[in-house]
Amino acid sequence: LPPVGLAAAPLWRTGARALSTQPQPDTSSTTTITDATGRPDETPYQPVRDAPPKSDPNYPWKWHSFLPEHTYKPNLNVDLKRHVQPTGFSDRFAYYTVKFLRFFADAFFQRRYGHRAVVLETVAAVPGMVGGMMLHLQCLRRFRQSGGWIRVLLEEAENERMHLMVYMSIAQPRALERALVILAQAGFFSFYTLLYTISPKTAHRLVGYLEEEAIVSYTEYLKDIDDGRIPNIPAPPIAIDYWQLDPNARLRDVVLATRADEAHHRDVNHLRANLIKAHRGDPAPYAALKHGEVDPSQYGS
Amino acid sequence: LPPVGLAAAPLWRTGARALSTQPQPDTSSTTTITDATGRPDETPYQPVRDAPPKSDPNYPWKWHSFLPEHTYKPNLNVDLKRHVQPTGFSDRFAYYTVKFLRFFADAFFQRRYGHRAVVLETVAAVPGMVGGMMLHLQCLRRFRQSGGWIRVLLEEAENERMHLMVYMSIAQPRALERALVILAQAGFFSFYTLLYTISPKTAHRLVGYLEEEAIVSYTEYLKDIDDGRIPNIPAPPIAIDYWQLDPNARLRDVVLATRADEAHHRDVNHLRANLIKAHRGDPAPYAALKHGEVDPSQYGS
Ligand SMILES: [Fe+2]
Ligand SMILES: [Fe+2]
Ligand SMILES: [Fe+2]
Ligand SMILES: [Fe+2]
Repeated sequence: LPPVGLAAAPLWRTGARALSTQPQPDTSSTTTITDATGRPDETPYQPVRDAPPKSDPNYPWKWHSFLPEHTYKPNLNVDLKRHVQPTGFSDRFAYYTVKFLRFFADAFFQRRYGHRAVVLETVAAVPGMVGGMMLHLQCLRRFRQSGGWIRVLLEEAENERMHLMVYMSIAQPRALERALVILAQAGFFSFYTLLYTISPKTAHRLVGYLEEEAIVSYTEYLKDIDDGRIPNIPAPPIAIDYWQLDPNARLRDVVLATRADEAHHRDVNHLRANLIKAHRGDPAPYAALKHGEVDPSQYGS
Repeated sequence: LPPVGLAAAPLWRTGARALSTQPQPDTSSTTTITDATGRPDETPYQPVRDAPPKSDPNYPWKWHSFLPEHTYKPNLNVDLKRHVQPTGFSDRFAYYTVKFLRFFADAFFQRRYGHRAVVLETVAAVPGMVGGMMLHLQCLRRFRQSGGWIRVLLEEAENERMHLMVYMSIAQPRALERALVILAQAGFFSFYTLLYTISPKTAHRLVGYLEEEAIVSYTEYLKDIDDGRIPNIPAPPIAIDYWQLDPNARLRDVVLATRADEAHHRDVNHLRANLIKAHRGDPAPYAALKHGEVDPSQYGS
């Protein structure tokens, strides 16, 4: 067998052929098409830094879920302690709703942080998609551009879905958790869409607070790794490629990268809530798209 | 006044300040935040090829609706005559629904192709967003990746929204058309979401046929330009930047670029409908994301 990097036909094409000979999963449903492997590719590890110019369509890039240009180095210098003090009914509603949801998550998962990540990332990927869609539809109705916010929100949704893919290669969800995810999505999708319709400000504030809690959870995860309660296994290849980590990176580095992303989402969503609160139409800051530094209290002059 | 390229502070920041001193539009609505200018920037034309490496956040890029890395050269060699013969109930339902919708569009707009573009692009931007969202939610529920299809569909939605921004700088929608767009979005969004829930195959086929009709309309638009019935005005700066056109490009070049995009959407959606029909889980071809050549009949081996 030739090594991955030297395969004669690009994976973008051979992948298709390989899939077609496999048994078809889930044929019971009318919405049948998902990747038949259902999991990140298990072919030998090929690091991102060997990627050719992204204009080359023949490169045998191994991931179907993302491309070299979607990878980045997480901003590990991000302020982890930042908290927006709730002021007014809207903020307090968002704050206490999140505290209420956290109570159930803590009771259910306790210290199984891998499982917690797998289940909660399926929920975390909902708000960006809902917000992006609502803003997209609104911009179309008003013949306006969004100032870059649609793309920022959709990128957040993609980023959260990548978190899910990464933690899927660390912890497999149990049957009960798979069922729970379907219920949680139905409930949270409906709730968040309704909330976004009534008050986008409250909706973005709620995500800001959800992300504050996500930082707490991933910090606890880190502590259990450092205390030896959770083995610090080698980082899965998908995480190494997605965050441009060192080839010898371990679980600890993966959790650090994830936590940095959550802090970024926190800042972007608090910023947007603050802007709506101040009746301002500022475009999305460049850093919001680029996983850079965003301070939700610094806007305008 | 310094030229745009030499401004002291980047537009990503000064834009925010400038907006805050303007009167706030649309304060009657609870969903207040859209760009306060509501229109593409009217600052002097700055071509894309002068853009610095996209890693430089200080570059005074003038557009809030897209960035240099979202620009591309449209594939003008695309096959304009390609047609997928409807076979089976699903295909025929899609085909005749599109023919039925075309009847009303023709009666309403007749030869006002600029207005037709502005109104119909608000509808064209809906399917990619709905499909991308549905697939995103499905992938989360099943703990799976989509094989790149989510990104392909969301990029289609963004591309259609950019079409809208471009034609907004050519034709202003009338009051009746603005009202019509709100009704059309409510109707088409509900219809398409329901259709996508029942049969993603039929939904993608329908978009394929919609795009076949879009090609016909933009070809008629071109003919009226060539016959002198519509003046071949200079291309708006937003179109020159978005499609990397020549600085002296004219309306004709803009319509050519738009039509090439529609042909690309046609091929991508017919391909996906064909894949679902064949019960295949192939990942999205690389070219689908890159505005490259996609042949809906060529897949697998
Ligand atoms: Fe996350
Ligand atoms: Fe997050
Ligand atoms: Fe279009
Ligand atoms: Fe289109």
